[in-house]
Amino acid sequence: MKKVTAFAPATVANVSCGFDILGFAVEELGDRVTVTFSEEPGLKVTKIEGDQGRLPYDVDKNTCSVAVKAMLEKLDFQGGIEIHLTKGLPLGSGMGSSAASSVAALEATNRLLGNPLDKKDLLPFAMIAEGVACGAPHADNVAPSLLGGFVLVRSYDPLDVTKLHVPNGLYCTLVHPHFELNTADSRSVLRQQVPLKDAIIQSGNIAGLVAGLFQEDMGLISRSLQDVIAEPSRAVLIPGYEEIKEAIKEAGALGCGISGSGPTTFILSPSREIAHKVSDISQEVFNKMGLEVDLYVSAVNIRGAYVINEE
Amino acid sequence: MKKVTAFAPATVANVSCGFDILGFAVEELGDRVTVTFSEEPGLKVTKIEGDQGRLPYDVDKNTCSVAVKAMLEKLDFQGGIEIHLTKGLPLGSGMGSSAASSVAALEATNRLLGNPLDKKDLLPFAMIAEGVACGAPHADNVAPSLLGGFVLVRSYDPLDVTKLHVPNGLYCTLVHPHFELNTADSRSVLRQQVPLKDAIIQSGNIAGLVAGLFQEDMGLISRSLQDVIAEPSRAVLIPGYEEIKEAIKEAGALGCGISGSGPTTFILSPSREIAHKVSDISQEVFNKMGLEVDLYVSAVNIRGAYVINEE
Repeated sequence: MKKVTAFAPATVANVSCGFDILGFAVEELGDRVTVTFSEEPGLKVTKIEGDQGRLPYDVDKNTCSVAVKAMLEKLDFQGGIEIHLTKGLPLGSGMGSSAASSVAALEATNRLLGNPLDKKDLLPFAMIAEGVACGAPHADNVAPSLLGGFVLVRSYDPLDVTKLHVPNGLYCTLVHPHFELNTADSRSVLRQQVPLKDAIIQSGNIAGLVAGLFQEDMGLISRSLQDVIAEPSRAVLIPGYEEIKEAIKEAGALGCGISGSGPTTFILSPSREIAHKVSDISQEVFNKMGLEVDLYVSAVNIRGAYVINEE
Repeated sequence: MKKVTAFAPATVANVSCGFDILGFAVEELGDRVTVTFSEEPGLKVTKIEGDQGRLPYDVDKNTCSVAVKAMLEKLDFQGGIEIHLTKGLPLGSGMGSSAASSVAALEATNRLLGNPLDKKDLLPFAMIAEGVACGAPHADNVAPSLLGGFVLVRSYDPLDVTKLHVPNGLYCTLVHPHFELNTADSRSVLRQQVPLKDAIIQSGNIAGLVAGLFQEDMGLISRSLQDVIAEPSRAVLIPGYEEIKEAIKEAGALGCGISGSGPTTFILSPSREIAHKVSDISQEVFNKMGLEVDLYVSAVNIRGAYVINEE
């Protein structure tokens, strides 16, 4: 094998009451990476498409090469590899753009080398890349992008990652209005102390959400999709958020939240039909405010990153 | 039918990271209540056994009669009923003593009247009794005592209660040292503000615990049984707690916590054998400190309260 292309999906992190601990992957929308053996030893980023020239080719700055470099060092690989990244995801959107790139690169490279590592073992390398891209080695985008489904990151020390059950018929709508939110801004608005009462409410909701996923109880999932810790501070950064939140519930959606650090909003629905309906509703709200918006309707991806071509 | 006896089990509330939202029921240990139709209209507590004379016969103060009175008012029942309570549970132990009494009384009365209400519909009446007994209408003892298993109380407004899956082979050891802790004291030591970091750790742990229960993943349950919010303040009220916590993990238990407001400590184990082993270990620790201790080893009760006799 001389050339492998892998796909890694977009992801929603900070899933409502699962702030900082829960993410999930979506279908189709994502990044593609092709890796090729080269004559010349060392790692090189040879081509980046779909980024409007914004991503770095520097091996120590591009998330693909940062992740793959860490992996190759671990494997003590001395040969040469070239990376070609095709972005399918908008940058800075809150849909796990940097995670999808590094995960696709790792998945492709692992196959190119004959799968020396288990899928789950690729996670630490993707987290190193997240550290470079976001300033902190978060796992709540890279873990679902790699593994698929809803993924709980219970702990970082030691790393403890668990796939949760995905109910049949659960659909996601991603609403990406055309403005960028800086992750640092989005974190700076968070209160560093939380009332005990709110911490207990949040616990109850995340417990209800996890139980609802396992029991395929759409009502319980819906009642549990309430974030009393991060959302109240962050929602004000996204114009139209409260209006959408109310309208989509009326239309039969289960609930919504800010994807990652925003500005993308995710909406969970109990059917594809409702997911499309709330997509239309969200578009109206943003267009009324003069904002362009990208919309994606998708099932929850349950397989994570995968190889799409090998030669 | 003229006479019905029901049993309701002891319960563990505040299950570690499930502080204020999660409880479970144990087998065997619990209270029995016999209700009988009487000629004279109205409700009467005619006999209380096993309480060393400490519980009130006053219909508006005894948790059995408070609960049944609320139920009879709802059903607009005008006849006469007599209540005979046999305590199997020590008072003020943190094992849901008041809850077991009121739940047994409700279960028995519902059957006596020909089951006019579903089991779940008895819950609000038991909560009224908890309000009288503890000063607040908590559901985290009465719900598992009534319904059995692990019960999540996601919300009180509106009330949202969910039974979780109970893994095969899960055993509980209850360690009740002979001193009483006042619930009010136990609440007063809690911090009213929680660092954001701790709120997130608690969320991750309760999510992990719920996932572990559904997936029957004993390792995940064990790693998740960590309460960073209430336990650090409360553990100091129970001499020997930290020593037991360390020793039982070494012996193969999954983890432990303070049951309700204490002083009873619960220990969860992946087998009956280990549950007995950590029972012995706990006894040694308390005896060394000159404290007498009651010990109970039990499977998790999955059926809740039930009728044991009817005539």
